[in-house]
Amino acid sequence: MSATTSLLSSVPVATPSAHYDILIGNGLLQHPDSWVGLPKAAQAVIVTNPTVGELYAAALQEAVSRHYGRVTVLALPDGEAFKGWETLNLVFDHLLGEGCDRKTVLFALGGGVVGDMTGFAAACYMRGVPFVQVPTTLLAQVDSSVGGKTAINHPLGKNMIGAFYQPARVICDLGTLGTLPQREFSAGLAEVIKYGPICDAGFLDWIETHLDDLMARDAKALAHAVRRSCEIKAEVVGQDEREGGLRAILNYGHTFGHAIEAGLGYGEWLHGEAVACGMVMASELSVLLGLMPASFVPRMQRLLERARLPVAGPALGVQRYLELMRLDKKTEGGEIRFVLIESLGRAVVRPASDELVARAIERHVTGI
Amino acid sequence: MSATTSLLSSVPVATPSAHYDILIGNGLLQHPDSWVGLPKAAQAVIVTNPTVGELYAAALQEAVSRHYGRVTVLALPDGEAFKGWETLNLVFDHLLGEGCDRKTVLFALGGGVVGDMTGFAAACYMRGVPFVQVPTTLLAQVDSSVGGKTAINHPLGKNMIGAFYQPARVICDLGTLGTLPQREFSAGLAEVIKYGPICDAGFLDWIETHLDDLMARDAKALAHAVRRSCEIKAEVVGQDEREGGLRAILNYGHTFGHAIEAGLGYGEWLHGEAVACGMVMASELSVLLGLMPASFVPRMQRLLERARLPVAGPALGVQRYLELMRLDKKTEGGEIRFVLIESLGRAVVRPASDELVARAIERHVTGI
Repeated sequence: MSATTSLLSSVPVATPSAHYDILIGNGLLQHPDSWVGLPKAAQAVIVTNPTVGELYAAALQEAVSRHYGRVTVLALPDGEAFKGWETLNLVFDHLLGEGCDRKTVLFALGGGVVGDMTGFAAACYMRGVPFVQVPTTLLAQVDSSVGGKTAINHPLGKNMIGAFYQPARVICDLGTLGTLPQREFSAGLAEVIKYGPICDAGFLDWIETHLDDLMARDAKALAHAVRRSCEIKAEVVGQDEREGGLRAILNYGHTFGHAIEAGLGYGEWLHGEAVACGMVMASELSVLLGLMPASFVPRMQRLLERARLPVAGPALGVQRYLELMRLDKKTEGGEIRFVLIESLGRAVVRPASDELVARAIERHVTGI
Repeated sequence: MSATTSLLSSVPVATPSAHYDILIGNGLLQHPDSWVGLPKAAQAVIVTNPTVGELYAAALQEAVSRHYGRVTVLALPDGEAFKGWETLNLVFDHLLGEGCDRKTVLFALGGGVVGDMTGFAAACYMRGVPFVQVPTTLLAQVDSSVGGKTAINHPLGKNMIGAFYQPARVICDLGTLGTLPQREFSAGLAEVIKYGPICDAGFLDWIETHLDDLMARDAKALAHAVRRSCEIKAEVVGQDEREGGLRAILNYGHTFGHAIEAGLGYGEWLHGEAVACGMVMASELSVLLGLMPASFVPRMQRLLERARLPVAGPALGVQRYLELMRLDKKTEGGEIRFVLIESLGRAVVRPASDELVARAIERHVTGI
């Protein structure tokens, strides 16, 4: 690697269906080494959105053009509201229009929406073509690009249609985080913070100590946060690729969060914002069930507030929350299952009575 | 099994991703044993089409209701022309509308279109729910229900969007073949005949000897044809689940056939009819390349004609054929790859010059 770039870490991911690496470093996008050894093909397609595409698509296109005879770029409309069939079909239209065959490699350049849609398109196009994640948001680097969950939304539920489909590589260029709007950066921190309570109490302490550095986007702090997050996610996913059990803990705060996103309409709140607020509710539920001491809730609230994340949900009405949560993929036979903290660094998945759930919600919605 | 039903065979399928059985017999639909030991869930959904649904959905619903608390039926519009996103979304609408969770079991009751769409819906719904194939056409029993290929069509190509996703079981009730229209029955025979030249010269001889019995839908002949077809397909799929190599031989006649289907518009010809004609062209190409003696083409033609299948393609123009074939999933870097016979019972996959391909087509299109 040249003087202006540095590979800080390589985190291996090993699942029953695939082995691949997460590369983490500065300037990886432009660096030739990042793109060596990927699946060979006549064509590659970079899928991105207009904002990220304008910033980075040319650099990526130049870098991968050394390996593929023809590299085209497709910019999809941006945002959670576009994560549906219509937009996914734009990818298939492009691939078929360009005569892409079943060796064609897709590159997902962007945040969670681009990654989820490109991954799902790769899973389905001719029953599966290789794809590479090039996440450019903090949320995508620490969470959505790793582990092979791909999906699109349905009007009745988020991420309801999708596949478990692993990328050939994940390339996290920390340099791209410099151009991220503050609100999106904070949303990514919600997923970083998540890893503490569910898996690593020491990491939660570290985040609390270094939150100001992270908010200032200090390179060293960011590198550690991304690497540790990826390590935890890789370990969990390696043990349970298809979410038979353990993997569900990565959805801490997500059951409440999905209800917020769906209730307000996708895209109103960012995913990470909804998760932040959902973690407060899930922490409260953990306390109400006697799993955690009462002090856990304010601790989470303080940390999330420092990260400029919302800690109170919209007043949708408790019944509406419950109704939306029943659509969660962890629901079984109509019973909602929650990710709860039983001790710092240890999560469990279990049901809870509607009464307690309602109380956890009521305590953390904005006044009407 | 009771006196009116008989389980004739159970063919095991073993792929890297799953092990399951193909049950073949008379009256299996109504028989309680057919449905024992499937994945447990609170709900099951039977996906079918109006024609098949009217004949068999009530019996299936009654049989599986012993195992699932709630069993609903969804009838999709029938035919290849409806095998797209819009129809697939009807399945997701139904599943989410009924509050189906990720343990819900889907039953595909019908022919290839229902099986392909239900399988793909099962692969995608909440990133994968179990499904059971209950094929009621000859084509589905001997080919499409076995092996886990699921897909929908795109306006630019057949089966372009899909997944490799194995069923939990395949239940072939030979009794359902009694209600099959003659044209569909013949279309299924095309896929039965296919297995001879690619894998089993003895089976080709057997089909030639017993074609009149098959056409009369003699129970014993049908049972043998379905069982042997499933055995061959199970063996090929077990060796190459994701079509890395060997599995492509199952597409004998399909490259030409897909061009016919796409060129005329999906649904104009039945899939099996297009495959029949495609096999004649592929046989001709095998002869033109010097792999097979000239007598092979009339032998295939005679057998297909006896099965009341077309042996000459529509006059789309040779350039249009080539253009449509270049969209085939076996195409790599713009080079079409053909399944050819190198000796009876042995197929190869290889490219051929446009000139020879054009000649193979020209010899077997209807006069203008």
